[in-house]
Amino acid sequence: MRKPRLMLPVLLACALLCPAQDAIQLPKPQMEGGKPLMQTLKERQTGREFSPEKLSPQVLSNLLWAAFGVNRPDGRRTAPTASNRQEIDIYVTTADGAYLYDAKNNSLQPVAKEDVRAATGKQPFVATAPVNLVYVADFAKMGKSTDENKIFYSATDTGFISQNVYLFCASEGLATVVRGMVDREGLAKALKLRPDQRAVLAQTVGYPAKK
Amino acid sequence: MRKPRLMLPVLLACALLCPAQDAIQLPKPQMEGGKPLMQTLKERQTGREFSPEKLSPQVLSNLLWAAFGVNRPDGRRTAPTASNRQEIDIYVTTADGAYLYDAKNNSLQPVAKEDVRAATGKQPFVATAPVNLVYVADFAKMGKSTDENKIFYSATDTGFISQNVYLFCASEGLATVVRGMVDREGLAKALKLRPDQRAVLAQTVGYPAKK
Repeated sequence: MRKPRLMLPVLLACALLCPAQDAIQLPKPQMEGGKPLMQTLKERQTGREFSPEKLSPQVLSNLLWAAFGVNRPDGRRTAPTASNRQEIDIYVTTADGAYLYDAKNNSLQPVAKEDVRAATGKQPFVATAPVNLVYVADFAKMGKSTDENKIFYSATDTGFISQNVYLFCASEGLATVVRGMVDREGLAKALKLRPDQRAVLAQTVGYPAKK
Repeated sequence: MRKPRLMLPVLLACALLCPAQDAIQLPKPQMEGGKPLMQTLKERQTGREFSPEKLSPQVLSNLLWAAFGVNRPDGRRTAPTASNRQEIDIYVTTADGAYLYDAKNNSLQPVAKEDVRAATGKQPFVATAPVNLVYVADFAKMGKSTDENKIFYSATDTGFISQNVYLFCASEGLATVVRGMVDREGLAKALKLRPDQRAVLAQTVGYPAKK
């Protein structure tokens, strides 16, 4: 009889404390380097022609950290959010599946095993470009505000993050395009979102197509 | 009789082609330099304590160019906008008055002679910080979309621009805070906005207060 008594608390503690199975640890992001800011801004542009070449784990880690990583010991981030609610989650879709970026642990939490890139947009390139990010607002983190306000602030907050991705891509020689025409219902299904989560924008990232 | 005949076309041509009186030409923005992008992202933060020290015309020019300047010969900008509608205008309020940033001509068009900084927000620092930017959406440039869509896309588009300002400030050692709680009616009056213009966010910029 003693064994089951011990096992239950251990299992409960693990369910609460252990990282989810199959979480993928990302390489530590490189927080130095890149092009000088003004030059990066000069080269900021939208690109819609992507090579199928995959991003390395290091480049993906750097990209996600630049987007909305933790840049201070108190957990604050590379982009602001209204009242520091940090309500935007970044979902990463690749040929290998869909993942939730865990900024605190610098890891990817699997959310789907299948390739759901095509669900992130209507343009043909989304299905084959190596990475499509989906910015998802978690309304549960936004207090008792009206839905109108939640939509507004999650839009501005997504803009801050997306511009970081634009600048990272300009610095790194990557192509990127942010996309507003997204199928929110389809995305919610593909990414297994709760009803109080809302896909805001999607953004495709990859190396530019060779001409 | 000949003089009036000649004068009218000349006056009309000037009204259409000549820059508005008192437009302030900004120094050419410096499009090189700044901190490396990743270091800039590491130092990205919000600051709410400002020195009253003014920004030099060169720093103001660089700030506005970084925010939403023209970075390509075809008139495209340092931040994207939905369908490249470029519907966001930056109004600049200082102790000397309020101005509209003309990105194409790199100049400031006066819109008010008085100091309207206090109208840009409720926090005490807005009245004394040297610069408060106000991001204003021009719904007339956004086609036949619904107001709901116009509010959404002008919010994301403002986020892109505001993040450029955050990163410029991080690179340049300036403090900045973006602010969502703005008195849209008061701002519309202070900045003489048309009914189809909407103040989206405001952002204070200045040197950090000396401690």
